[in-house]
Amino acid sequence: MNEIFNKVDVILVKSPDTNFFYFTQLEGMWEGSYVVVFPDDVKVIAPPLEEGEAYFYHNKEEMKKILKEIVNAERIGFNGNSISYRDFIFLKKLIGGKWVDVGKELMEMRAIKRREEIERIKKACRKTFEIMEEIEFNGKKEGEVCAEIEYKVRKGGLKMAFDTIVAFGKNTSSPHHIPGTKKFSFPVILDMGIKFQNYCSDITESFVNTKGKRIYEIVDEALHMAIDEIREGVEARNVAKKIEKFLKKNGYGMRHALGHSIGIDVHDGFPVTTNSEFVFRENMVFAIEPAVYTKSLGIRLERDIVVGKEKSRIIR
Amino acid sequence: MNEIFNKVDVILVKSPDTNFFYFTQLEGMWEGSYVVVFPDDVKVIAPPLEEGEAYFYHNKEEMKKILKEIVNAERIGFNGNSISYRDFIFLKKLIGGKWVDVGKELMEMRAIKRREEIERIKKACRKTFEIMEEIEFNGKKEGEVCAEIEYKVRKGGLKMAFDTIVAFGKNTSSPHHIPGTKKFSFPVILDMGIKFQNYCSDITESFVNTKGKRIYEIVDEALHMAIDEIREGVEARNVAKKIEKFLKKNGYGMRHALGHSIGIDVHDGFPVTTNSEFVFRENMVFAIEPAVYTKSLGIRLERDIVVGKEKSRIIR
Repeated sequence: MNEIFNKVDVILVKSPDTNFFYFTQLEGMWEGSYVVVFPDDVKVIAPPLEEGEAYFYHNKEEMKKILKEIVNAERIGFNGNSISYRDFIFLKKLIGGKWVDVGKELMEMRAIKRREEIERIKKACRKTFEIMEEIEFNGKKEGEVCAEIEYKVRKGGLKMAFDTIVAFGKNTSSPHHIPGTKKFSFPVILDMGIKFQNYCSDITESFVNTKGKRIYEIVDEALHMAIDEIREGVEARNVAKKIEKFLKKNGYGMRHALGHSIGIDVHDGFPVTTNSEFVFRENMVFAIEPAVYTKSLGIRLERDIVVGKEKSRIIR
Repeated sequence: MNEIFNKVDVILVKSPDTNFFYFTQLEGMWEGSYVVVFPDDVKVIAPPLEEGEAYFYHNKEEMKKILKEIVNAERIGFNGNSISYRDFIFLKKLIGGKWVDVGKELMEMRAIKRREEIERIKKACRKTFEIMEEIEFNGKKEGEVCAEIEYKVRKGGLKMAFDTIVAFGKNTSSPHHIPGTKKFSFPVILDMGIKFQNYCSDITESFVNTKGKRIYEIVDEALHMAIDEIREGVEARNVAKKIEKFLKKNGYGMRHALGHSIGIDVHDGFPVTTNSEFVFRENMVFAIEPAVYTKSLGIRLERDIVVGKEKSRIIR
């Protein structure tokens, strides 16, 4: 954070952008709202249908006036990864000054989690495992299983982190399968995530019979091999390369990234691929998800881990 | 559409952006995918985890190469309302040429719906009313009602258009209330929407006892007054002004827009406010939602309508 304020005097974030929640801890929509982040203060500008401590505007002219008054700085940081081209042009022209894209710096800052953030992710993971254990597939359709999972989550007062993936039989060969009317058969992919106080889990289980057993064991070995490699100071691309090599040796390739940072967003910054250009740091949190897809089936295993100085720990 | 191609030779849309679905009709995530729209053809560029007819790239270099080959045009249209500042800078530098923000033109094009689009919205609305009628509030908490509604929708193989709002008692005074543990009491606001083949409904019911009856009648009158005004050629801001005046006469103000265009997005383009700068056209589809919020309660009524030449029709 202090590093960002060496480059800029103020950071302006327009909602929707998960940095809005990161800086304000305000839940809800906050559509058309702004957070102005100073080194020692945070101010919110919002339309009048929101509630809380904010500078409320009732029309566009008032919004412009408040923005100009509050963002009264020379160097203005913005999130180029999220703000739309049109909003950027509008705000730059309105406010003036020097605009600096600090999207990368915000991503890097958010990648290393504070203790409370890790606690929230842990609670999301625990609830996810709890629900996964309760689920019965027998005789059900993919879409029915989805509906039941989401009912359990919502009844518990929580939200889904993303649309649950339930794939049966041949449908598992598609990584992003949309659950439909197919009835239960092996193998099964169940990929789900929950938000606990706005922080996400992202966990995948695969269930196989004899036919998928060999591939399951390969993917399981890849998962633990990856997690054993990840610790402070290790280059992400080297882990991805090692897993790719291992899968290749067994006759398979990777069809998607080995993993991704998780947090307020399910994809919360860095993907772990053979092209990654970052190094693992203590208290980063990742979903690691090696997978094999053939024409007739797919197996994916995904666990969320906290990176440590000496090793990583799977969140259970 | 033809008007846009007077200004540009090609339109490039990067997913996530609902224009991706509009032009491709491809369901699913399609993260990191592009659609290149020519006057007589549509081409998709995607990472390999997606499935369908597309030019697949396996790494960033391949993505750049394919983009340059396919988007080989002088004047390139893009959606400035959706594309991030960073993606815009990256693509413009990569591809060159003259870049034209056609975000407004795309929004205007999408505002007028084709027959199939209206049919899908109608089906989403019908399913929404069906589920609303089945819901029992007695003895339940807000969150439980939400969970049940979403279970019914998901079990029917459909998706929510947005997080359902259920508010009981005093909580109704907050337009964007997040459902919690409050037990049923009057008044009730139930605001929900469903996606049918990617098209949204957005409907709100309020239920009152004696206490809320007077305000309910005012809001109901405002709703029908608004719908009676809306038809081809009418200026949107005049309708919003008329409703604001009517509410004021009764001692109340508007805390949010009177309505908004609906379609693939729940907020699919134009909001209807006293500052609106558009004119209603035949086959536009809107959610109209007058509301009154006091310190102790809120009443909101929302119906989806199709604008006609002579009058508007409520979708039931």
